[in-house]
Amino acid sequence: MDIVSISDLHSNKVKINSSVIIKGWVRHNRSSKSGISFIDMYDGSCFHTIQIIARNILVNYYQEIIKLTVGCSIVVYGKLIESLGRNQVYEINAKKIQIVGLVKDASNYPMSSKNHTIKHLRKHSHLRPRTNFIGSISRIRNGLFHALHKFLFDREYYWISTPIITGLNSEGGGEMFRVSTLDFSNVPKNNFSNVNFEHDFFGRESFLSVSGQLSLEAYACSLSKVYSFGPIFRAENSNTSRHLSEFWMLEVETAFSNLNDLIVLSESMLQYSVNFILEKCSVDLEFLKKTLDLNIISRLQEFSKRKFIVIEYKEAISILKKSNEFPNKSIFLNMNLLLEHERYLVEKHFNFPIIIINYPRSLKAFYMKLNKDNETVAAMDLLVPKIGEILGGSEREEELKNLDERFSEFSLKKDSYWWYRDLRKYGTVPHAGFGLGFERFLSYITGVKNVKDVSPFPRTIKNFNI
Amino acid sequence: MDIVSISDLHSNKVKINSSVIIKGWVRHNRSSKSGISFIDMYDGSCFHTIQIIARNILVNYYQEIIKLTVGCSIVVYGKLIESLGRNQVYEINAKKIQIVGLVKDASNYPMSSKNHTIKHLRKHSHLRPRTNFIGSISRIRNGLFHALHKFLFDREYYWISTPIITGLNSEGGGEMFRVSTLDFSNVPKNNFSNVNFEHDFFGRESFLSVSGQLSLEAYACSLSKVYSFGPIFRAENSNTSRHLSEFWMLEVETAFSNLNDLIVLSESMLQYSVNFILEKCSVDLEFLKKTLDLNIISRLQEFSKRKFIVIEYKEAISILKKSNEFPNKSIFLNMNLLLEHERYLVEKHFNFPIIIINYPRSLKAFYMKLNKDNETVAAMDLLVPKIGEILGGSEREEELKNLDERFSEFSLKKDSYWWYRDLRKYGTVPHAGFGLGFERFLSYITGVKNVKDVSPFPRTIKNFNI
Repeated sequence: MDIVSISDLHSNKVKINSSVIIKGWVRHNRSSKSGISFIDMYDGSCFHTIQIIARNILVNYYQEIIKLTVGCSIVVYGKLIESLGRNQVYEINAKKIQIVGLVKDASNYPMSSKNHTIKHLRKHSHLRPRTNFIGSISRIRNGLFHALHKFLFDREYYWISTPIITGLNSEGGGEMFRVSTLDFSNVPKNNFSNVNFEHDFFGRESFLSVSGQLSLEAYACSLSKVYSFGPIFRAENSNTSRHLSEFWMLEVETAFSNLNDLIVLSESMLQYSVNFILEKCSVDLEFLKKTLDLNIISRLQEFSKRKFIVIEYKEAISILKKSNEFPNKSIFLNMNLLLEHERYLVEKHFNFPIIIINYPRSLKAFYMKLNKDNETVAAMDLLVPKIGEILGGSEREEELKNLDERFSEFSLKKDSYWWYRDLRKYGTVPHAGFGLGFERFLSYITGVKNVKDVSPFPRTIKNFNI
Repeated sequence: MDIVSISDLHSNKVKINSSVIIKGWVRHNRSSKSGISFIDMYDGSCFHTIQIIARNILVNYYQEIIKLTVGCSIVVYGKLIESLGRNQVYEINAKKIQIVGLVKDASNYPMSSKNHTIKHLRKHSHLRPRTNFIGSISRIRNGLFHALHKFLFDREYYWISTPIITGLNSEGGGEMFRVSTLDFSNVPKNNFSNVNFEHDFFGRESFLSVSGQLSLEAYACSLSKVYSFGPIFRAENSNTSRHLSEFWMLEVETAFSNLNDLIVLSESMLQYSVNFILEKCSVDLEFLKKTLDLNIISRLQEFSKRKFIVIEYKEAISILKKSNEFPNKSIFLNMNLLLEHERYLVEKHFNFPIIIINYPRSLKAFYMKLNKDNETVAAMDLLVPKIGEILGGSEREEELKNLDERFSEFSLKKDSYWWYRDLRKYGTVPHAGFGLGFERFLSYITGVKNVKDVSPFPRTIKNFNI
């Protein structure tokens, strides 16, 4: 007898009439008066359950089997047969069912079979992967993660782990979390009554990184094609459906490349990933189609084929002005696009993801390369319906002289960036890169509105309980 | 003319006599009196360089080309030809060489062509990937990372991102970094003069995770086979060649599995990864063989084939006692094995990696499952020469009653672990898992003695500068 997963059963890896052992949990149990229990069993290996047919000839039928409730763990010994039922292809004729773990106080089991609200699920991050919904999201998340890695590995991009603990603000702004081992109730001060960070673990002020880009550039200026993919931390006071304080970001950096290369690379990477999901996670997508987003599959198919629309920032402003959707004075050149503007462009005007390029210099970070007009930077943002920006990138300023001017412009101390400046002193090369917000992209793919529901254990302001 | 990488040239993807464009950096430049420059050029895509033949008929030959120093960035337009030289198969006959970035003050370039000490390289984490040594390590690191992911993906393990910011100490001990946005110079206190963490970002005390295991168990109890792979933080005051304050850890957790399954899984995973490196990184390994470890390839080949040796903790103690290598009283049952003991066992006694199982309960964490002897836990540590432990795992206590007793034994507040206890209340299953220290394994594979040199931007106590 082989131990098999439910995924094995549904991918025809097991022959009909084989004797098998299956280990998992009860999704549903219905006992008929004629002495048969029909147990739907899941093990998380795929969306499918397998139906177990248990008859009253089993020794523990009346004492244990008919009492099984949702969530109980069992080991089933039986034979794989073709099902006569309309809802499944296979089922298991059980020879023996061993009860492994019961659900204590079943009526209060937080993942009982009734429908739960998404908010209820959020309170139970540790149990919600047991539901069809979060199970599917988790498998798609896994698929997307591997698709992105595979795309880059196949193209000989090298994965680099950029540091999380840092002394530098890579974006030159934005809120950071401090990392410390100092005794908070008795913080050491220096002669000027300032906190003396020499006593701290690293002997200096330390923070959680808001981006690995600057360190990644050091590797792009050595290995040419590199990427990082890890957690990123932002201490922003933004309690929206699009913000997490801890999220995963994929950052890609390529030496000798420009804005156009970035657009081509990011388009093919995102389309490759969506194709990967369409192929590998079709059953989970079918479930989301039924329950969440009727158009999910056609939407993803279109995304995976159609060329992204590229427009200039100036064009975007002019479209918004002409739209009459916003007060006339609220739309002007050099303004920061708000979510409502982004959504108008992608959802109403273009009805498809768009890339906006060449933003005003004042709106973007210090490291972005100025265009020849001296007013805009060679930057791109990819916007998608509902969510807005999921990916942003730019050419990086590679001339030391220009970079130093940008430090002054942003009132940043260039000495803090000494090593970043070294990259321009020694064999500098034009290079460009982008960052992809993993949860936002996943949210777009799955149609799940809130990024809290596509992250296993979301961290947001004033809020994490598990 | 196609833009190609040096890796393309050396993997026969480009036909002889093709016109190509290559972008990269000068590793070495030698000009003959007869008016020819031989430029060794690298782009990081592989260990190899490509030799560029530049003749004095090129317009910028005397003004620029002969002055090129190590580290300068160039774009070469030329034809791929077979080399007559003994040191290379191919070379490029240059039609045009465009200088992209010079090295300012070349004699002070920190990565000049002379031999640098490993300590010198550490001071320049941002430039050291330009060296052959750190370039090779980086490519092997990338290979190992992908090998581990691929092994688990192919076996339908799902990748889960466990949270970094946490309120819980997963190991029930050990030093953690605090994460905060409080103003350190003016920490808010409550009525009892204690720090009032309600004012902090998350409204509670928050730390960097020392392990993702407990959260991963929640997913193993839903999806059966899961893993996480991300950065881990330990604020230990250990300034050794084996400790980093920030490192990457692979954690694997499997429902319905036991200690024996763990041993089988970890052995096949590590052997698969080493085989992957032997195949994909052979040129980088050849370089390390020449410069660092003469036996590296035979050592890895043996590792990838030979079954790991498994011994009981008790046996380990008895071997150490008999060895006469340590003062007699210093070896006793229930003692913690020190690095010197581990090294004696793997380097002198067995001369091969070993797995020690069934450690005394007092030496291991609260979540490990007690064996029937009530004295030992179903745990394993994998030890390798030079480095000691690289992987540790155990069965997890799945019975709520026993787990609660363990909380008492370790003086841990069980209420803090309420959600972890839930996993035992609702359909508990036997499960087991392990954690692999990525940098330690990489250090073993490469023969690099200090983990600081296999991590791109190492963080250790009182020490990070980039």
